[in-house]
Amino acid sequence: MATRKKKAKTKKKPAKRVKSRVSSKPKAQNAFYAQSGGVTAVINASACGIIETARKNKKHIAKVYAGRNGIIGALTEDLIDTSKESAATIRALRHTPSGAFGSCRYKLKSLEHNRREYERLIEVFKAHNIGYFFYNGGGDSADTCLKISQLSETMGYPIKAIHVPKTVDNDLPITDNCPGFGSVAKYIAVSTREASFDVASMCKTSTKVFVLEVMGRHAGWIAAAGGLASDKDCEIPVVILFPEVTFDKEKFLKRVDELVKKHGYCSVVVSEGVKGTDGKFLADQGLVDAFGHAQLGGAAPVVASMIKDGLGLKYHWGVADYLQRAARHVASKTDVNMAYAMGKAAVQYAVKGHNSVMPTVVRVSNKPFKWKVGMASLSKVANVEKMMPKNFISKDGFGITQACRNYLLPLIKGEDYPPYKDGMPKYVRPKNVAVPKKLKTRFEV
Amino acid sequence: MATRKKKAKTKKKPAKRVKSRVSSKPKAQNAFYAQSGGVTAVINASACGIIETARKNKKHIAKVYAGRNGIIGALTEDLIDTSKESAATIRALRHTPSGAFGSCRYKLKSLEHNRREYERLIEVFKAHNIGYFFYNGGGDSADTCLKISQLSETMGYPIKAIHVPKTVDNDLPITDNCPGFGSVAKYIAVSTREASFDVASMCKTSTKVFVLEVMGRHAGWIAAAGGLASDKDCEIPVVILFPEVTFDKEKFLKRVDELVKKHGYCSVVVSEGVKGTDGKFLADQGLVDAFGHAQLGGAAPVVASMIKDGLGLKYHWGVADYLQRAARHVASKTDVNMAYAMGKAAVQYAVKGHNSVMPTVVRVSNKPFKWKVGMASLSKVANVEKMMPKNFISKDGFGITQACRNYLLPLIKGEDYPPYKDGMPKYVRPKNVAVPKKLKTRFEV
Repeated sequence: MATRKKKAKTKKKPAKRVKSRVSSKPKAQNAFYAQSGGVTAVINASACGIIETARKNKKHIAKVYAGRNGIIGALTEDLIDTSKESAATIRALRHTPSGAFGSCRYKLKSLEHNRREYERLIEVFKAHNIGYFFYNGGGDSADTCLKISQLSETMGYPIKAIHVPKTVDNDLPITDNCPGFGSVAKYIAVSTREASFDVASMCKTSTKVFVLEVMGRHAGWIAAAGGLASDKDCEIPVVILFPEVTFDKEKFLKRVDELVKKHGYCSVVVSEGVKGTDGKFLADQGLVDAFGHAQLGGAAPVVASMIKDGLGLKYHWGVADYLQRAARHVASKTDVNMAYAMGKAAVQYAVKGHNSVMPTVVRVSNKPFKWKVGMASLSKVANVEKMMPKNFISKDGFGITQACRNYLLPLIKGEDYPPYKDGMPKYVRPKNVAVPKKLKTRFEV
Repeated sequence: MATRKKKAKTKKKPAKRVKSRVSSKPKAQNAFYAQSGGVTAVINASACGIIETARKNKKHIAKVYAGRNGIIGALTEDLIDTSKESAATIRALRHTPSGAFGSCRYKLKSLEHNRREYERLIEVFKAHNIGYFFYNGGGDSADTCLKISQLSETMGYPIKAIHVPKTVDNDLPITDNCPGFGSVAKYIAVSTREASFDVASMCKTSTKVFVLEVMGRHAGWIAAAGGLASDKDCEIPVVILFPEVTFDKEKFLKRVDELVKKHGYCSVVVSEGVKGTDGKFLADQGLVDAFGHAQLGGAAPVVASMIKDGLGLKYHWGVADYLQRAARHVASKTDVNMAYAMGKAAVQYAVKGHNSVMPTVVRVSNKPFKWKVGMASLSKVANVEKMMPKNFISKDGFGITQACRNYLLPLIKGEDYPPYKDGMPKYVRPKNVAVPKKLKTRFEV
């Protein structure tokens, strides 16, 4: 559409100027966007940033096609035409959790092992005149994004591939944080504070310990957010169990005992990734039911049982699971803004000709909190996992340091409530109209 | 203070009028307020209603003393002087979850079995010139409240005893609903919608069923709220497991299978109180760890394991536990208003001379939703449990009916966000200054 408009305009201008314009004007191509891996409360805010910015750059990007269920949509040529969605729908993506076009857990194999998959992607991109590839995910998708960019060059159909950071695990390097994380952190901090107020009310005669299990297989970023439940205006005894710290049952029970003796109660935030000295996940205790069938427990009930057996204290436990990463109702405004900004920057970088890069959050200052958008080369992002710095975990291994607090606090700042109707949040579901297929070959995944 | 002011005023008036005033003016007495049983996101809103209204009725109520940790505070003469709290602190109770003065799970025995406890209460009330007793709780505390009123009469120290309804279980009779329930219902409805959006995004290659365990040992009110996740604007396949319906594994797996085949995913909301045909709680499956130690599981992991074993579907499960009843950050405005209104009415009833009653919510109309404050006799409230009406559960036993929806929807309506500072909700902690003891006798509980 924009291209057509431009042509109309240029007709009115002198011939020589037209010529110079045409030669410098890139031909608009379509863009492909896919959501990858576990979704978040704000990944759609990145999608919103991408689509809204692309719509403003029609001389470069004609249409944004989204992969239905992520990269699988590209492999199977199942593309969604986002140009069929109204501006209101796209705007509403900003306040809608989850992946509006569907995500997938599908890691492309290495080039050596399955070159066919990469070739198929290029084939689909070529068929649909796709010149831009926006991949919204974590470490694995950064790697895929990089490979596609490289292969497209060798195959003679160069594609600008931009990775858009997203992961609740906050484990991508270079960027200050990963959009998605700030909102989970806020949910865990708020929930831990609220549940702690509850236990404090009950502890005289009833529950003395509340155990909350949170996500984080490898890194304790989310568990660390539980530490924000307590601050100088509102002290709360919280014990954090990080996956970075080998679980020591005796030391842990001693700490809980001390806190309960001092405060009457305490809260425990346990990461699903905590392992014991045997290297096994706490959650993986080989539970069996009365018939001997294996049962998948969680880390929380295991820890709670230890507290009951070891200290004789009454406990309650909760497992936040999907609730934590889907909780758009209590999202961090900072996080939403960053997620949108990453999407917007991805398009801006792409139309400027950048390739194989990822927009990043650059922290400029803590007080007042200032940040800007930066850029990282994908070769430095792919396959690198950012762990919690050692100085973020307190010496006893059960808490967060001031440095960690300084890092985390700005990320949960601000509220960004979705609109409600009749008591329920109004989340949007795009129509997700399919782009007609052009290829005759099918591809099974 | 008010009494003193009144006296000062009357001095300026003619003698005969003073006399008539004094004779008709009741002598201000103190009030005792206690929080009982499991706390909620809005029980402090009732406390706020009571204290603010009492402060406006100083000619009847001098001071409000709160029991530290509920009724135990009365038995042990551990009273909190709420007059030491600023108006701002009392106002902030309205947006603070949990029990600000401490609650307890302590059921007074029957008069026959422990008359001493009741006598002790009267003794403490007498010593502190307490003429009003406001008890904020569920069925058990309504019963205690009634007994205290009756015994105080026989003991010659009559006390106006008013029960203030509170319970997330929503199981008190006569009142349309119990403050505390609406906010849990909103939390469960919102969380189920959000988690369902998440599963829907992931279901192509990963999780197909999300199981959420919610509170409700006897009645399925909270589980029913999961049904609100889905509505005509936003259809979501949800299976609800009510404690009112005996769990039938085959039928349940068939239903999940159907929904996953049709929609690609589904959510299951399971009440902690669900029992199988053997009459045992699903949660109580006799789980043992590798060492043979018993482990307390939950209903959610048990149901999830069935789905995995029976249908081979990938699942996730969460247990909301305390998070649901402490979640003031997503409280229902209707619920907050009702909780406050119950506290306010309790004081108004008491100063008008009512006794052995409970303020109630009376539903006037559904569309538009209108309600008013009513009054119930405690003799009709105590020891009566309100179950879900049969016509609230769909024929197949896995969902809610339109009648149930009409009942529930107004209760979750409206948002009432707490204030935030640096990304965290600002909940208040009163100073909770102790009233000097007057009795020489101690009482052990």
